[in-house]
Amino acid sequence: MINAKEYLKKKSAEIDGPIRMYIRDQEPMNLIEASRQYPYAGGKRMRPAMVMASCGAVGGNPSDSVPLAVAIEYIHNFTLIHDDLIDGDDLRRGMKTIHNAYSMPVSILSGDWLFSKACGIVCGMDIPAERIVRIMKYVTEAVCDIGRGEQMDVNNEGKIVSEDYYMETIKLKTGVLFGAAAAGGAIAGGADDKTARALYDFAVELGLGFQIYDDYLGVAGDPSVTGKPVGNDIRKGKCTCMITHAFRTIKDRKTLERFESILGKEDATDEECAEARKILEDAGSVDYAMNLARSKIKKAIDLISFLPDSEEKEFMTAIAEYAINRNI
Amino acid sequence: MINAKEYLKKKSAEIDGPIRMYIRDQEPMNLIEASRQYPYAGGKRMRPAMVMASCGAVGGNPSDSVPLAVAIEYIHNFTLIHDDLIDGDDLRRGMKTIHNAYSMPVSILSGDWLFSKACGIVCGMDIPAERIVRIMKYVTEAVCDIGRGEQMDVNNEGKIVSEDYYMETIKLKTGVLFGAAAAGGAIAGGADDKTARALYDFAVELGLGFQIYDDYLGVAGDPSVTGKPVGNDIRKGKCTCMITHAFRTIKDRKTLERFESILGKEDATDEECAEARKILEDAGSVDYAMNLARSKIKKAIDLISFLPDSEEKEFMTAIAEYAINRNI
Repeated sequence: MINAKEYLKKKSAEIDGPIRMYIRDQEPMNLIEASRQYPYAGGKRMRPAMVMASCGAVGGNPSDSVPLAVAIEYIHNFTLIHDDLIDGDDLRRGMKTIHNAYSMPVSILSGDWLFSKACGIVCGMDIPAERIVRIMKYVTEAVCDIGRGEQMDVNNEGKIVSEDYYMETIKLKTGVLFGAAAAGGAIAGGADDKTARALYDFAVELGLGFQIYDDYLGVAGDPSVTGKPVGNDIRKGKCTCMITHAFRTIKDRKTLERFESILGKEDATDEECAEARKILEDAGSVDYAMNLARSKIKKAIDLISFLPDSEEKEFMTAIAEYAINRNI
Repeated sequence: MINAKEYLKKKSAEIDGPIRMYIRDQEPMNLIEASRQYPYAGGKRMRPAMVMASCGAVGGNPSDSVPLAVAIEYIHNFTLIHDDLIDGDDLRRGMKTIHNAYSMPVSILSGDWLFSKACGIVCGMDIPAERIVRIMKYVTEAVCDIGRGEQMDVNNEGKIVSEDYYMETIKLKTGVLFGAAAAGGAIAGGADDKTARALYDFAVELGLGFQIYDDYLGVAGDPSVTGKPVGNDIRKGKCTCMITHAFRTIKDRKTLERFESILGKEDATDEECAEARKILEDAGSVDYAMNLARSKIKKAIDLISFLPDSEEKEFMTAIAEYAINRNI
């Protein structure tokens, strides 16, 4: 069985060169340097790895899909730049965010620039034009969806939404770009529409599992490993499927009131956060999230069972399992 | 001879329906409504008219290019939404700007959404995929350029730049999207690369002439017609080719000092603005701008002289002349 983490590291090393190749020096340099910051900083590179794996899994030559892998990573970074500005986050993985390191205008314009650059890279791919157009449909649809998801998040900040609404939001914010990566890679590799759609569905489910597990880690994870402060999501009042589960499950009024009094309390003490976590655990909400993440991953893996055996298919299965078996 | 204004009105009526067709209701509605505001509000529709005229001028069927015409208008609107936020402008043609009517997040996300939607519309066009890809290369290059131009503007706010720098900025901010509209329309109509490039060059020059004349109107125009307050550009200290000309031409130190003391003075009186305008006129800077605009338009018209005669070619010539013969 392939070790997803090791494989990701290998793919990440392969893609780092191309990621630095497409952004040449030009005026104005503050825009260019800001556009480079996130892509050059690294990260898990899960989306580029997904593009290349998907291309290989359908019988294509993964190296044909490298420009798309770069483009998907740029698009991911473009959405992060704009989201950081919108959410007012001043740091990302210890680095100053673009609006913080530069300014609001640079944040907006470097995001726009990266997105447009990414589309230009896809249109310059050395594959039949008909494939490029099909890939671009997935990519542009995904970016529209991501904007909708972020707006839904903004509209409901601090509110408790339904689980359906939560699932729709994380599908739009996280799932669809994984989907476009997988479908796009498959199309670059010569897949027909049906196969591309199956790979899209696979990656969307994987994205959901990934995000639900991320939320799970935010409550149940080890802060010394995840790097997220204890109780961060509790203090922020972040609405996850654990929270929606708790609200529809807890029948004891006093417990519910206590929980509500801690959730979203910015200056909650560590003890209070631990208490809220205990309430979630006792209500079965933490297990519920873990099981939900598992079921998404199982569904994802089932969706690509039709693919012939290959190293790439093995990686796609492994990365789906890794999505809910990581501690960071 | 075709009357450009009348022809524009006719084309505007043709495009208004399609412009409203592509944005369907979906969650979250505040994002969708914000995305609709600028495109639905109308305007000169010069860019969509350019797309269709260019398509017809190379022998294509203009109706094949309607989706591109819509997409180019959406892209124009996307850049306006983001620029209004960046520049802190609260009104556009008497309407509240998006960040003012909604919020900063809605402004960012509706701009992103419109741009991505526009690319999706181009990719859905009923023309050969090879043409779509060639169009998209022009479109994405233009959007990268527009971001660079806006950033150059932001970087040099309140500074006096060289005329070359000014020309580069307005080329990026205004010229290249006209260029992409014309080249894209031509490609949709079946033009080869050389023809598309010639139409691109034509429209870039037209865009330059248009913008230089716009700056001219800002100083020499009739405020009761243009709707721009008297001396607006003077008070803002906007660096145009009149200003760069004045600075390299005026040799009298006292006059120059007086001019500098008014330029960019936010609370300058109408009398002071009139004085600054008089200094520009005496220095020949106002005539200089008008002549520069004329030379750009002449160059533009020369660049399409190779096209066979057609109603569309006539319109393209007429609109180039209209760009420097309007009072609004």
